[in-house]
Amino acid sequence: MKKDTRSLLLEVGVEMISINGFNNTGIAEVLKAAGVPKGSFYHYFDSKDDFGIQVIDHFCVGYFEWIEQFLGDKDYTPLTRLRALIQEYMVRFKAKNYACGCLFGSLSQELAGQSELFRAKLQEAFEKLLLRLEALFAEGQACGEIPSTIRPRDLAEFYLNAVEGTIIRCKVLKSDAPMDLFLAMFFEHLCKIQQPLKFNV
Amino acid sequence: MKKDTRSLLLEVGVEMISINGFNNTGIAEVLKAAGVPKGSFYHYFDSKDDFGIQVIDHFCVGYFEWIEQFLGDKDYTPLTRLRALIQEYMVRFKAKNYACGCLFGSLSQELAGQSELFRAKLQEAFEKLLLRLEALFAEGQACGEIPSTIRPRDLAEFYLNAVEGTIIRCKVLKSDAPMDLFLAMFFEHLCKIQQPLKFNV
Repeated sequence: MKKDTRSLLLEVGVEMISINGFNNTGIAEVLKAAGVPKGSFYHYFDSKDDFGIQVIDHFCVGYFEWIEQFLGDKDYTPLTRLRALIQEYMVRFKAKNYACGCLFGSLSQELAGQSELFRAKLQEAFEKLLLRLEALFAEGQACGEIPSTIRPRDLAEFYLNAVEGTIIRCKVLKSDAPMDLFLAMFFEHLCKIQQPLKFNV
Repeated sequence: MKKDTRSLLLEVGVEMISINGFNNTGIAEVLKAAGVPKGSFYHYFDSKDDFGIQVIDHFCVGYFEWIEQFLGDKDYTPLTRLRALIQEYMVRFKAKNYACGCLFGSLSQELAGQSELFRAKLQEAFEKLLLRLEALFAEGQACGEIPSTIRPRDLAEFYLNAVEGTIIRCKVLKSDAPMDLFLAMFFEHLCKIQQPLKFNV
């Protein structure tokens, strides 16, 4: 089935923005790469910002379906599913020579300080991801795979934030090594804490 | 003492690039903000890329002097010094409404996939920072403040990467909360591990 023009522009947008950032991606380039005539853009989008927001929404649909293939696979334990997801993520990241990392992370870095519109949209995307991770860690605690010494929400926050920074360092080193170290620290250790932690947050 | 034109341009560059990113910072804007005539730029810099690289070098000089005021203050234990540094960092970050985070992190996110020149320069900056953190953690182990169960290099890598991601999330939430959680996890727990960890990396 031939893709409709709007979806095609959004997909090209995801690809180009992931690599070059939002500010550095021109509408003309997107249209050219998609093979779509110039006049069409404002038929589908009110502005470049509107396009950017719709790119994030479009990315989210595919992204959350994709992670669910791993995180929702009840044949495996919660932590095994999370490991499988990050392993598949790293295979894809490496295949692109570590040139693009996490769209949420890179757009946050670029735009959260510049635009309230993007900041709010990215916060929404992160929150959705956090809720999914929180549920996964809660499931791991319920089945006894993870001790119940850290709140699932805290584990989710810690995991997500550390992964975001680790992706940046993989990008700079063009290597899996930072992620390997993080996963070792997280899975071998933080997920096995037997003593309750005292947090003030 | 009046600053020389080159230093002035570099300082304005650090400020503008920290907030807007490299691609989104125009040379004309930098010159205008610095109140320097247009013709001067190519007297000091070969190209915009050359300017960007010199901005990183210029930032590094001040940055490493600044962190040393904390990390080198032998009146306090190594972990106390690190806490003091991150607390001061967060005060500054908050004062700017969380709009700019870590110059190394944001430029890495933006440029590491686009430019080998910037990727190599940022890797160099991260490596210098990692060596400083590694020495700090080694000092903490030598004085018994941190158990010697994790290699200082691994602690440094883990700390730095997690902080980079946590800064992104503080930016998106416009809040200290992600950093508070990270510090609690790191200082209350990872720095107190009594059992050796088995890493394969």
